[in-house]
Amino acid sequence: MKRINVGIIGLGTVGGGVVRMLKQHHDAYMRDQDIDLNLVAVASREPEEAKELGVTDIFTMDGNDVINHPDVDIVIELVGGVTFAKDFVFDAINKGKHVITANKALISACGNELMKLAGEKGVEIAFETSVGGGIPIIGPLRHSLAGNQIQSVVGIVNGTTNYMLTRMSEDSMEYSAALKEAQDNGFAEFNPSADVEGHDAAAKIAILATIAFNTDIRIEQVPVEGITKITPIDLDIAREMGYTIKLLAIANRTPDGIDIRVHPTMLPVKHQLSNVTGVYNAIYVTGDYVGETMFFGEGAGSGAAASSVVGDLIEVARHMAFREQITQPVWDTEKLPIRPIDVLETSYYLRLPVTDRPGVLAATAQVFAEHQVSIYSMVQHGAQDGKAELIYVTHKAKESAIQATIAGLKDLEDVLAGDPVLIRIEN
Amino acid sequence: MKRINVGIIGLGTVGGGVVRMLKQHHDAYMRDQDIDLNLVAVASREPEEAKELGVTDIFTMDGNDVINHPDVDIVIELVGGVTFAKDFVFDAINKGKHVITANKALISACGNELMKLAGEKGVEIAFETSVGGGIPIIGPLRHSLAGNQIQSVVGIVNGTTNYMLTRMSEDSMEYSAALKEAQDNGFAEFNPSADVEGHDAAAKIAILATIAFNTDIRIEQVPVEGITKITPIDLDIAREMGYTIKLLAIANRTPDGIDIRVHPTMLPVKHQLSNVTGVYNAIYVTGDYVGETMFFGEGAGSGAAASSVVGDLIEVARHMAFREQITQPVWDTEKLPIRPIDVLETSYYLRLPVTDRPGVLAATAQVFAEHQVSIYSMVQHGAQDGKAELIYVTHKAKESAIQATIAGLKDLEDVLAGDPVLIRIEN
Repeated sequence: MKRINVGIIGLGTVGGGVVRMLKQHHDAYMRDQDIDLNLVAVASREPEEAKELGVTDIFTMDGNDVINHPDVDIVIELVGGVTFAKDFVFDAINKGKHVITANKALISACGNELMKLAGEKGVEIAFETSVGGGIPIIGPLRHSLAGNQIQSVVGIVNGTTNYMLTRMSEDSMEYSAALKEAQDNGFAEFNPSADVEGHDAAAKIAILATIAFNTDIRIEQVPVEGITKITPIDLDIAREMGYTIKLLAIANRTPDGIDIRVHPTMLPVKHQLSNVTGVYNAIYVTGDYVGETMFFGEGAGSGAAASSVVGDLIEVARHMAFREQITQPVWDTEKLPIRPIDVLETSYYLRLPVTDRPGVLAATAQVFAEHQVSIYSMVQHGAQDGKAELIYVTHKAKESAIQATIAGLKDLEDVLAGDPVLIRIEN
Repeated sequence: MKRINVGIIGLGTVGGGVVRMLKQHHDAYMRDQDIDLNLVAVASREPEEAKELGVTDIFTMDGNDVINHPDVDIVIELVGGVTFAKDFVFDAINKGKHVITANKALISACGNELMKLAGEKGVEIAFETSVGGGIPIIGPLRHSLAGNQIQSVVGIVNGTTNYMLTRMSEDSMEYSAALKEAQDNGFAEFNPSADVEGHDAAAKIAILATIAFNTDIRIEQVPVEGITKITPIDLDIAREMGYTIKLLAIANRTPDGIDIRVHPTMLPVKHQLSNVTGVYNAIYVTGDYVGETMFFGEGAGSGAAASSVVGDLIEVARHMAFREQITQPVWDTEKLPIRPIDVLETSYYLRLPVTDRPGVLAATAQVFAEHQVSIYSMVQHGAQDGKAELIYVTHKAKESAIQATIAGLKDLEDVLAGDPVLIRIEN
């Protein structure tokens, strides 16, 4: 049996789960996978974490010690972010070590450089955990679905916002109360901006789209809107219309390039993704032969993330143990352009705060008409204290036209300050 | 670039899809996967199929010609069944060819012998298509989820019966009408017994359980009940109770061994599997670290099945092209016992045809009491022409006790001939 030596940098939620899993199932991996996964070095800034996990004998406070450890074959990077973690990962690859990482920020910022360097050095870099926590999605895209031309990848890939939207929808909770509850339950950070403003989801869809479309896509190329402006009113109206509101990360192959974006979206209640509630994640993949598929599971948490890290670890270790050459992953072979969001055509929900005065409706309708945006339905909501909200649903219109309409509406005297709420509708 | 030569035996629905996919995407696989997948031989009993697909130049009517073709590296077996197909697969492996197959009957009948032989001969056998059509499930169980101790695998793995139950539920259609419609739409065979009696699902859960529990399990070890006795009445009552009825293929790890079975099951409407309607399939997998995951998609059809066959083909071809040794799959390393269904403990729904006469209810209740089966609720349904139906829902009881109860009920004078309808309830 081949012994494979493993080092871990980062012993937080995910790292702790990985240590526990490797200890608990070590003998099962020997029996089932014919490999002896041997933890030889762990690093953390918090010695307490090593003590709790019972790994003080192989503990160091410096991640470089793990990388430079002569016996370490595979480095597991669980620090996160693009400062220290980036250096650790590049250094490890440069030193000929295989790398497993959960770092979505790193992969979505410089995946292409990492893949090229790994190819030169003859090592593997695996990152199933970077998207969807415990959900197998990168593996299936790379393997079982590899024969398809992927048409679209649409995901609920941020558990924090999905939890908040679920609470706001099912219990008419306000945004701020839902956020506080998520924080109290450990589902949201003290500073929640990466989640609620959609940047976390943007990193993940950049990674999924890169793999699905064989085209290097970076997080900064993803137009992103978060859920901070959504209120229970929007969720109520959506329900009346037969829709849910989800923060979707969307990537479509179009004749004009890749359509990629993150924003709150109305989805028909019958759609499989509409049934994904709470902190769960799901990724909906459509391919030209396979048709529609969906992958559902826990998008975060110690156990789920550890499951994906160890899945990657077993695969890389088995490659080391049983094969002499490494298969390089598919990355950036197709090099498709990215389509600007301006040319998107869809239906829109628009909630507009106005003064409650005669003539307002006509004035706003005129702006829609000027920009050739056709209105499907309009209701006035909650008139009081001289204020009201106008809620429009449009027919299909161009993104550029709806944005021009919004700009025009904001110039009207009776439209109140603050951004109107715009939600794109998918059918 | 490495050229890999491929032969196909069977050009029906799936084989036709594979030929089309390989032709359409040949250049994409060269670009993305760095392999030249070259179709060099195809066999079918129907020369017309080869003509339609434009492959008459490499056509033969004898599958042995494909296996014996000196250039063929990988044989794709799409004949099905355990007669000719079995010989083709064993012969191909014996001749040192890799094999891709969609044959659930073959794998669930003699997977262990095939895996051992492939190991001896240093070739791979891949069979993602044998379960769930286009859904990636065997790959994820083998790779991304490989670090988990899998607790359960529960699936809707037969599209025909799921389509019928959906129609019966949503449109109060009778069993026979739903079957006819499924046949008219090409979702059911002229002889539908393998689907409606649950044997197709039994083969699939035997394969999934073998992989999930590292224990060789054969189709004949799976207790199976089909949907032939289900009526719209059962579906209506289930809905009133907050349940759907699905033909589930279930495999649980228990302290006493593997609990494996196929039968109609009541599931809470909120469960993810309850939302899987029509011909779609889904497999719900629970692991000790990953928690709950689900894999959803098209369980049959030319494109979906071809997607999985070609996914397997690309993987095996890349192993050939870029690695010198072959990793043998995990198979039967854990060797768990199978638990008899008698010790199952669950709640039951029982519909019993009786004569509509005073004292019947008391007599039946007495039988439940004798066998220590506690009744949660009872309703009488549709009394006319001197006949009625009693519908019981029990508290949790042992399978052996409910079977003894049914035997006792059938001995009562006022219980009418024919089997009562028993549906197990999962919560």
